[in-house]
Amino acid sequence: MTQFFEPYMKPEFISWLFLNLGKIIGILIGARILIQLGRGMIERLFAQSMRSRLFGEAKRLETLKVLSLSIVTYGIYFMVILMVLGVLGVNTASIIASAGIVGLAVGFGAQSLVKDVITGFFMIFENYFTVGDYIQAAGVGGIVEEMGLRTTTIRDWAGELHIIPNSQITIVTNFSRGKSRALVDVRISYKEDIDRAIEVLQKEADQVAKEFKETIVEAPRVLGVQDLGSSEVLIRVIAFTQALEQWPLERELRKRLKGALDQAGIEIPSPAAKVVY
Amino acid sequence: MTQFFEPYMKPEFISWLFLNLGKIIGILIGARILIQLGRGMIERLFAQSMRSRLFGEAKRLETLKVLSLSIVTYGIYFMVILMVLGVLGVNTASIIASAGIVGLAVGFGAQSLVKDVITGFFMIFENYFTVGDYIQAAGVGGIVEEMGLRTTTIRDWAGELHIIPNSQITIVTNFSRGKSRALVDVRISYKEDIDRAIEVLQKEADQVAKEFKETIVEAPRVLGVQDLGSSEVLIRVIAFTQALEQWPLERELRKRLKGALDQAGIEIPSPAAKVVY
Amino acid sequence: MTQFFEPYMKPEFISWLFLNLGKIIGILIGARILIQLGRGMIERLFAQSMRSRLFGEAKRLETLKVLSLSIVTYGIYFMVILMVLGVLGVNTASIIASAGIVGLAVGFGAQSLVKDVITGFFMIFENYFTVGDYIQAAGVGGIVEEMGLRTTTIRDWAGELHIIPNSQITIVTNFSRGKSRALVDVRISYKEDIDRAIEVLQKEADQVAKEFKETIVEAPRVLGVQDLGSSEVLIRVIAFTQALEQWPLERELRKRLKGALDQAGIEIPSPAAKVVY
Amino acid sequence: MTQFFEPYMKPEFISWLFLNLGKIIGILIGARILIQLGRGMIERLFAQSMRSRLFGEAKRLETLKVLSLSIVTYGIYFMVILMVLGVLGVNTASIIASAGIVGLAVGFGAQSLVKDVITGFFMIFENYFTVGDYIQAAGVGGIVEEMGLRTTTIRDWAGELHIIPNSQITIVTNFSRGKSRALVDVRISYKEDIDRAIEVLQKEADQVAKEFKETIVEAPRVLGVQDLGSSEVLIRVIAFTQALEQWPLERELRKRLKGALDQAGIEIPSPAAKVVY
Amino acid sequence: MTQFFEPYMKPEFISWLFLNLGKIIGILIGARILIQLGRGMIERLFAQSMRSRLFGEAKRLETLKVLSLSIVTYGIYFMVILMVLGVLGVNTASIIASAGIVGLAVGFGAQSLVKDVITGFFMIFENYFTVGDYIQAAGVGGIVEEMGLRTTTIRDWAGELHIIPNSQITIVTNFSRGKSRALVDVRISYKEDIDRAIEVLQKEADQVAKEFKETIVEAPRVLGVQDLGSSEVLIRVIAFTQALEQWPLERELRKRLKGALDQAGIEIPSPAAKVVY
Amino acid sequence: MTQFFEPYMKPEFISWLFLNLGKIIGILIGARILIQLGRGMIERLFAQSMRSRLFGEAKRLETLKVLSLSIVTYGIYFMVILMVLGVLGVNTASIIASAGIVGLAVGFGAQSLVKDVITGFFMIFENYFTVGDYIQAAGVGGIVEEMGLRTTTIRDWAGELHIIPNSQITIVTNFSRGKSRALVDVRISYKEDIDRAIEVLQKEADQVAKEFKETIVEAPRVLGVQDLGSSEVLIRVIAFTQALEQWPLERELRKRLKGALDQAGIEIPSPAAKVVY
Amino acid sequence: MTQFFEPYMKPEFISWLFLNLGKIIGILIGARILIQLGRGMIERLFAQSMRSRLFGEAKRLETLKVLSLSIVTYGIYFMVILMVLGVLGVNTASIIASAGIVGLAVGFGAQSLVKDVITGFFMIFENYFTVGDYIQAAGVGGIVEEMGLRTTTIRDWAGELHIIPNSQITIVTNFSRGKSRALVDVRISYKEDIDRAIEVLQKEADQVAKEFKETIVEAPRVLGVQDLGSSEVLIRVIAFTQALEQWPLERELRKRLKGALDQAGIEIPSPAAKVVY
Repeated sequence: MTQFFEPYMKPEFISWLFLNLGKIIGILIGARILIQLGRGMIERLFAQSMRSRLFGEAKRLETLKVLSLSIVTYGIYFMVILMVLGVLGVNTASIIASAGIVGLAVGFGAQSLVKDVITGFFMIFENYFTVGDYIQAAGVGGIVEEMGLRTTTIRDWAGELHIIPNSQITIVTNFSRGKSRALVDVRISYKEDIDRAIEVLQKEADQVAKEFKETIVEAPRVLGVQDLGSSEVLIRVIAFTQALEQWPLERELRKRLKGALDQAGIEIPSPAAKVVY
Repeated sequence: MTQFFEPYMKPEFISWLFLNLGKIIGILIGARILIQLGRGMIERLFAQSMRSRLFGEAKRLETLKVLSLSIVTYGIYFMVILMVLGVLGVNTASIIASAGIVGLAVGFGAQSLVKDVITGFFMIFENYFTVGDYIQAAGVGGIVEEMGLRTTTIRDWAGELHIIPNSQITIVTNFSRGKSRALVDVRISYKEDIDRAIEVLQKEADQVAKEFKETIVEAPRVLGVQDLGSSEVLIRVIAFTQALEQWPLERELRKRLKGALDQAGIEIPSPAAKVVY
Repeated sequence: MTQFFEPYMKPEFISWLFLNLGKIIGILIGARILIQLGRGMIERLFAQSMRSRLFGEAKRLETLKVLSLSIVTYGIYFMVILMVLGVLGVNTASIIASAGIVGLAVGFGAQSLVKDVITGFFMIFENYFTVGDYIQAAGVGGIVEEMGLRTTTIRDWAGELHIIPNSQITIVTNFSRGKSRALVDVRISYKEDIDRAIEVLQKEADQVAKEFKETIVEAPRVLGVQDLGSSEVLIRVIAFTQALEQWPLERELRKRLKGALDQAGIEIPSPAAKVVY
Repeated sequence: MTQFFEPYMKPEFISWLFLNLGKIIGILIGARILIQLGRGMIERLFAQSMRSRLFGEAKRLETLKVLSLSIVTYGIYFMVILMVLGVLGVNTASIIASAGIVGLAVGFGAQSLVKDVITGFFMIFENYFTVGDYIQAAGVGGIVEEMGLRTTTIRDWAGELHIIPNSQITIVTNFSRGKSRALVDVRISYKEDIDRAIEVLQKEADQVAKEFKETIVEAPRVLGVQDLGSSEVLIRVIAFTQALEQWPLERELRKRLKGALDQAGIEIPSPAAKVVY
Repeated sequence: MTQFFEPYMKPEFISWLFLNLGKIIGILIGARILIQLGRGMIERLFAQSMRSRLFGEAKRLETLKVLSLSIVTYGIYFMVILMVLGVLGVNTASIIASAGIVGLAVGFGAQSLVKDVITGFFMIFENYFTVGDYIQAAGVGGIVEEMGLRTTTIRDWAGELHIIPNSQITIVTNFSRGKSRALVDVRISYKEDIDRAIEVLQKEADQVAKEFKETIVEAPRVLGVQDLGSSEVLIRVIAFTQALEQWPLERELRKRLKGALDQAGIEIPSPAAKVVY
Repeated sequence: MTQFFEPYMKPEFISWLFLNLGKIIGILIGARILIQLGRGMIERLFAQSMRSRLFGEAKRLETLKVLSLSIVTYGIYFMVILMVLGVLGVNTASIIASAGIVGLAVGFGAQSLVKDVITGFFMIFENYFTVGDYIQAAGVGGIVEEMGLRTTTIRDWAGELHIIPNSQITIVTNFSRGKSRALVDVRISYKEDIDRAIEVLQKEADQVAKEFKETIVEAPRVLGVQDLGSSEVLIRVIAFTQALEQWPLERELRKRLKGALDQAGIEIPSPAAKVVY
Repeated sequence: MTQFFEPYMKPEFISWLFLNLGKIIGILIGARILIQLGRGMIERLFAQSMRSRLFGEAKRLETLKVLSLSIVTYGIYFMVILMVLGVLGVNTASIIASAGIVGLAVGFGAQSLVKDVITGFFMIFENYFTVGDYIQAAGVGGIVEEMGLRTTTIRDWAGELHIIPNSQITIVTNFSRGKSRALVDVRISYKEDIDRAIEVLQKEADQVAKEFKETIVEAPRVLGVQDLGSSEVLIRVIAFTQALEQWPLERELRKRLKGALDQAGIEIPSPAAKVVY
């Protein structure tokens, strides 16, 4: 039995023990400092986030902070255990490999989360759009209500609220930067004189331009014959307005141009069919 | 034959043996503590889950707990064997590599499971929608019945129950946050006076607004000429109601506006065809 | 020539040899025990599977068991060879690397197999649907005939048998949980009085409700004007029945509502076309 | 110059040399045995394959066997070289890394080959379909002509031969297991009495059932009004036959039901259009 | 200054130097042999390829051979440098890691190249189709002009040449193996007697069968009523011919069956429309 | 207690301590220099970027610079800590592995960011298009407003601003390099003489060519009969203009060619329908 | 304080220092040589590229050369630093790991760049098409203007310039190799005699063949009845011309065959509709 304790009594073993005890104490102190630093950084980060509201409201941020603190703390504990085992000469490759596989699976699964945050950062940073802009992205269009690091919230005209993970946003179309185009296509009969029709339309369009002069950027202009359809000649009228002001103008143009054609006696044709017997 | 036992009799070997025996005993004790800690954590986690019902009902949670316990226990056993072999000087790289490949295959396969849980966590955490909201996600729309970490359950209007893995949910459209738009398009004949038709429609719409004043947020308004169709002028009427109250209003508007046009003698046209001989 | 044997005669070499012989014998014994344990576990697993029929019928299970046993046995043999070579001081990195690449290729290829089993486990565990339910998944709808860990078998109404790998199943729609909606759209002419038509339809629907009272959950109700079509006013009638009982009700409603309109002299219109000369 | 040979003359070097010579000889002997074992296994495997015809005909198998033998032999040669270099103290990490990258590229490229074989194995093992069944898989339907580990061959009704890599097969629809549904939709005019039409159709369907009684599983039955179309009332008749016997029944039903309606004077309508002036 | 050269003067250093010089010389000799072997193998491979024309014509093969030789030679040079540095005690991990990342990027990029060759090998090996067959693959149909390890060349009926990387080829449809189906659908009026029409068609089809007896495998047969259309009864006639001989038969059948119906006074209907006033 | 301090008093320990102290000081000095160098490089890089405006305006660049500096500084701190721990004999594999997994997840997430920059670099470098060109890319067409390393900004004709991540840009279609084609299809009646119609059209087209001679590259030319439609013969006229000048020419051609046909009395047909009784 | 310098005074340390100094000097000399070699190779490579114009024009090549030189030079500097640190006994695993993660991210991002170059090499090498050919690839068709290692430039008939990254090119269709098919479908009335119509068409087609004899490869031939449409019998005429010469022939055939049918009094039908009252 003394044989059992004998190797533990040798001076080399005791030296080795004390030396490693020193190392372990050092590791523990280092870990303690690291945890303090980590806590501090997280606290400061969240204080900033709370001011800039990037991650949403205060209550949710509180939850997220607690979560981050636990992850950092347990992560450091895990590494301390591994390092202490390593100091004691135990091979920790198996533990690291096991953790690695779990980490890999989580890493793969978290991939789109990371992509959300990276895309979100650049979206905010590069100022593609701001809260209040009318944009189209990821197949959804509407007014931007919130821009976060993980999601962007858009409310469309029907009142529906779309919550889009930022990684889904690739091409962004911003309707609030610059002018908007109003486009009205008018159909007239093949038997009418095209030049006269254009003249009538342009005159009426000029009238409309005066009424809408506050939002119009470029006055409506008859472009010409856009298509020779199966029963009608298609004449196109376009104008440019301030951003998002094109729809009322289009509606007014449609009403007025139709009236002008009626008054001038120019036929707006129904689809024609030639009957053969 | 004595030659065989000779190396095992040398004092160095015996020292080495006892030293390692100490290490192995330490590993075993450590593993025991770890298993106890793991069990405790799992028990506590499931006690919480059971209260918050995140993973479903009690019976299923019990099964899941037993499963988690086995995985943790066998995982620790596996690492203990590897560490003991390592202490005895056996090269365990081959075992770790073999386990690594199996782990990798499982990790890849479990990828969408991990993504389910991460997405599920953020969905619940960020409060995109709650049980009872009418949402559309992953091409499916309906009332949210259950929100879990792995799946979300939606029941649509036809009574069908849709079970959606959370990783399939990207863009979420929530219909229960804010007002809803009611939209009715009315067709009138080209030969009618548009201004008079608009007047008639607006008057009737005002009538309807009074009857629906409890759910209406913005009273119905005739927007104007939305389209000049091949046989008809399309006039659009919109209103805003409380969330999900737009459908009864739309139905009433359709009935009443049709009646108002009939009474005013304004023609609702059939598709016209001009016959040429 | 004596020079050749000389190093093998030194006492250090002999000590080294006997020491390693001991290690090798230990490895072989350990492997033997492991194989026995593995066999036992596989036998027990398959005995359970056979009872719960998760992997199909007995004969196939027998084949699968033999296969699993070979894989486990050869895998352990392979690791034993590597460890013995390692003990003898031969660098086995090249063998492990070679095996790793083969393993990686197999692991990638087996990815969807693993995903099948993980998805299958959760599907069975979370009780999304059971054998006999009418579900829709992976673009296929029908009665579930079998639920396995790897595949789910669905028979559709046309008698066709669909075998779906579980990894293909994401969103599951279950029609057998809760009530089903019956929906009938009736077209009436623009010249008819809508209120009277609704009255006639509701009266007849009430009649039908009495006959179907065993399966009806919510009696048929005329919702109102669903659409103002080009030649017809569309009136919608809905009811709710027990799960999957909606089709006979819909068929009866169609027949009876058509009869009621005929009797009341309300016209069901053909598509109208206004002819202009 | 003697300085150059001096280190090679030292007894330690010579001992080291002879010791390693022993190791190398051992490696070579081991490799020889492994190659013999590998050859034996491959020979046996191919003898079995040839009997079960899983990999196709004899001549191709011969080619495949020669290929497998070369791969195994050269693979073992490659590892022998690495181990001998390792024994001689040369760092072989660079060679392993180079081979690893090539192996990785090949492994990625071979991914779908591995998936073919794994899917093929389960397809044959789980008995989803057998040679002669009429199946639909990977967008292709027809009679299965061959089932291999890598590909499945289907001949469709047009005589075209489809060769499908097994990895392309996910959802399999088997038409040869169970009964098949025959479905005939008959259109009648809106002015006809639905109940009388159903009676006439059912009577004729009963006649047909007698003639087809050998293949019919469930006699044809008039389900009722399936749709109220724009110009016609759609009445559905269904029956169930033995697998793949539904098409002749459908054709006969179409001919006979049309005849029965003609005889009873019930109109089968053309698309109607109401002309308005 | 003597201090500087002192360590290089010690006998241990000199021994170490000479020992390693021996190793380096061995490595260089081994590399030389390997290059010679590699050259030989490549020469032989290309001599074979040139005979079987798998990689295209002689001039291109020459270019490819020179390229392969350079890659092999530079690869071996690279490994020799690494091994010599390793022998000299320089840590080469950084070089290997750098090469590894470049190799990985190239490996990923070359993935589809490897897949081309693997698929190409199996395509040629398994004899799915041969030069001259009419196949459909990767959305392209035509006569196979060339089958290579990397690409397959197909010329379609319009004379266009399609060059398809083999990795794009999954499902292959071969039209040249077995018989082809000729299918003609004939429309008759609802007012005609179906049985008489079938008789007339079958008689004419028998006539055609005699004229085409050299290519016909199964004589044309009237299957029966395939559809009850909105204005016509659809009657289907099918036949089977030798591979790719179905089109002339179909054209002749169309002409002759139309003539037969005309002669028998059976109406081929125009789309009917019932006009309601 | 003296036992505890004893190993720290041994001269070997003290030597080891001072030697490592030297190493640590060296590492710290090296890190300091590296940070200075890194700062310098970043400053210079951003000074250049600011001049070339590749990353946008000055304020954003300032933010990006601060961010880059922190990443570089913290990265070097992290490596210094690892190296110091390594010098002190602490096993840092666990820390590296942890960092590796985080790095991997970030690396995967940043993948499309890297691809943006690489694609952006080549787009700018290879001069596919420049600011002001009219291009189509990633399904969006318009005038290029900005070309950055990460995104390209395009404004379309409707005034909408599209912001496209460069990784979304694969095939680029540039409309501003070379000439543009004007294409007008004219329909004439089947009863007209085609040769005469072609003559009339060519004459009128020559007239138009004179008026547009400043933008026309190839004068309009009547190609011939492009299609024999169900009611009309389609005659195609094409011309080539300077880039993006084709639309006014097309509009004028449509108006003038229609007029020419009217004058020559050549009928532009309505869709014809043969009525059979 | 003397204690601090003591270990640096020991002869072993000094030996170690000088020995390593030698190694470091060797590494620096080797790196110098490598950089010179790398520069030489890059210079030569670009001199060749400039001649063959594979990478575009001279100015861009100059930029690319400078870039390549910096990458090679900085890469070697980086490795030199790592090796020197390694020689000094500093653990560089952390630096390598950091570089590895950055390298991995870049490698993933550069994946499609590598694929571009590999595909580009094979495209040029295998001579699928040359500058001036009319090809279709990646959904774009036109004349090849430039073939580079990274991109291929195609100009379509509308004058638009398409720049395609080579990795987007999979199936290539080459229209310039071999003959082209001209195909004209002619409709005749059901009441006409098909045999007579075929005769008339073939006679006219023979006339056209004489006029186009320079580009015709196979003279136009009436194939027969291609379809029995709802109102017309479709007769197909095909011919083969030299590559890309089919369009003028088709246009001429359309004009002439229509004329021939008119002259022979064979009716080209309008869509027929049978009116039922």
